[in-house]
Amino acid sequence: MLATVLHKPGDIRCEEVADPKILHPTDAIIKLSASCICGSDLWPYRGLQPVDGPMHMGHEYCGIVVEVGAEVRNVRPGQFVVGSFCLSDNPCPHCRFGFQSSCAQREFMSGAQAPYARVALADGTLVATAEVPPAELVPDLLAVSDVLGTGWYAADAAEVRQGSTVVVVGDGAVGLMGVLAAREMGAERIIAMSRHASRQRLAREFGATDIVAERGEEGVARIKDLTRGVGADSVLECVGTAESFDQALAVSRPGGTIGYVGVPHDVSLDGQRLFFGQKRMLGGPAPVRRFLPDLMDRVLKGRIKPGKVFDLQLPLADVAEGYRAMDERRAIKVMLSV
Amino acid sequence: MLATVLHKPGDIRCEEVADPKILHPTDAIIKLSASCICGSDLWPYRGLQPVDGPMHMGHEYCGIVVEVGAEVRNVRPGQFVVGSFCLSDNPCPHCRFGFQSSCAQREFMSGAQAPYARVALADGTLVATAEVPPAELVPDLLAVSDVLGTGWYAADAAEVRQGSTVVVVGDGAVGLMGVLAAREMGAERIIAMSRHASRQRLAREFGATDIVAERGEEGVARIKDLTRGVGADSVLECVGTAESFDQALAVSRPGGTIGYVGVPHDVSLDGQRLFFGQKRMLGGPAPVRRFLPDLMDRVLKGRIKPGKVFDLQLPLADVAEGYRAMDERRAIKVMLSV
Repeated sequence: MLATVLHKPGDIRCEEVADPKILHPTDAIIKLSASCICGSDLWPYRGLQPVDGPMHMGHEYCGIVVEVGAEVRNVRPGQFVVGSFCLSDNPCPHCRFGFQSSCAQREFMSGAQAPYARVALADGTLVATAEVPPAELVPDLLAVSDVLGTGWYAADAAEVRQGSTVVVVGDGAVGLMGVLAAREMGAERIIAMSRHASRQRLAREFGATDIVAERGEEGVARIKDLTRGVGADSVLECVGTAESFDQALAVSRPGGTIGYVGVPHDVSLDGQRLFFGQKRMLGGPAPVRRFLPDLMDRVLKGRIKPGKVFDLQLPLADVAEGYRAMDERRAIKVMLSV
Repeated sequence: MLATVLHKPGDIRCEEVADPKILHPTDAIIKLSASCICGSDLWPYRGLQPVDGPMHMGHEYCGIVVEVGAEVRNVRPGQFVVGSFCLSDNPCPHCRFGFQSSCAQREFMSGAQAPYARVALADGTLVATAEVPPAELVPDLLAVSDVLGTGWYAADAAEVRQGSTVVVVGDGAVGLMGVLAAREMGAERIIAMSRHASRQRLAREFGATDIVAERGEEGVARIKDLTRGVGADSVLECVGTAESFDQALAVSRPGGTIGYVGVPHDVSLDGQRLFFGQKRMLGGPAPVRRFLPDLMDRVLKGRIKPGKVFDLQLPLADVAEGYRAMDERRAIKVMLSV
């Protein structure tokens, strides 16, 4: 089949690779209904993360099960499924604690920017719908797999509640999904930090009540002003740089909570600053599996439309243009038809 | 009056100072029923925190109100009161959010190792008992003011619940109070890390189910072993050094919570370690005011005996010996009769 391979930074190709096969009796093979490019795919693409030989890219997926290993019990060929980018067994203590992204057997999905993909730990990872959903819901269900699940986790980790005042740091696809999640969780005020008109529009559409275009000290001053000097109850840190963490710490109130989902790059936190600032923090790779049934249900009922985050659709053959468009921030998130 | 003054590191004296006076209409003057020495008093005593001129020491207190300023409404002369080491107004947004230790008007108490002391923001800070309690409860009520309140906050911030598995890092007075708090909150397993026989005994008396004397990698291995490889749901970090934070991070499970109450000294936390470890964290100066009514009630009902943490009692005149005994770890915590 033709699939996406990153050979070295900047060199991404759609090329012939071997079809995926069942390797373990707990595997499933799915035919993808669509795939997409993640902001985190840009780290190796930009050379900011090592590339040790050709990488099969793609970890967001939904589609039809075509084959299962001998031990798979929970899904069967013909079913439409969504899975998390973190593969998990589900009965281990970490999974039962709701942290499937730290599963004792955790693997990270790869090779999903392709027509077919192998999903390890299928029973623990995949959630099937009752029926094959209509095609127009595929973008929304695909979003659940990572970008929405991660934005949702940011809001969950940041303890967004009915009536909360929330700041979202980062206007990438995950940040925008964080806005949607905060609104679904009943936040009263959702302040999106964004400097880009198209992202500001989408943030408003997803539920942002205020937009702050300023950054750094000016951004902090604007948010203090909007919150009568108090700061935010919950901050969603959706970037992962030292600057974005600094912003998140500065705009959260004492006793407020920061949920962080951008992999921290060169971030070091000063103990005394956290201590005297009284910031509660939780982050990590999102345990999307915990949220999958609920989020799929919200999509199937038409309550949320996270697929709006895809603002560019390309055929898989044009995946290189998709990476370029995201790298140059011409696109928020690219969906690939496979 | 004779009171405690730190002139320079190691030079602590009981000497004549001016009697405290009402300086603001929101002040109260109390006659202390007893006072004590805090582990944090040792930082300047040891020269690990700057001493800019003579410091009036002591921030833990309970006693009888003898005078109030013109605007004080909630307490009156003759009442027995306990207050927090953080002075707070109580109606500001941070106080209402339960973080009185970040009160917009916050001051830190000082000058309580003395027969009389001024308490600023008396209405927001002090909680009176219905009657003057019997003398034998004074050590317990004094402990509420900081050492118990801080240990309690460590357990609260670490989200200890019914059935939790808890590790307490640090066998100082605060750590021991953390053990007591975890037991009161219903923890099923409380593992105290302690190398000192007398502190181990007290930890068991306060509710520890297991003692781990090992530290570093061996300590981590022992706790992993005791928790079937999972780690602790909640960790109370009651020291504040890089080593103790390292220990706390290493023994908590993914999705577990670290409550930290030791002021961090030279502690820097790596973003990726927190992220991939999925550690929830909250710390800071304890908002003891939030817990005062409940903790005083538990003491008055005889449910808890936190005063047992005082293992040396001295007259105020011998305060220098008290500091030496705590500095040399001959005493866990020293009570001063004033």
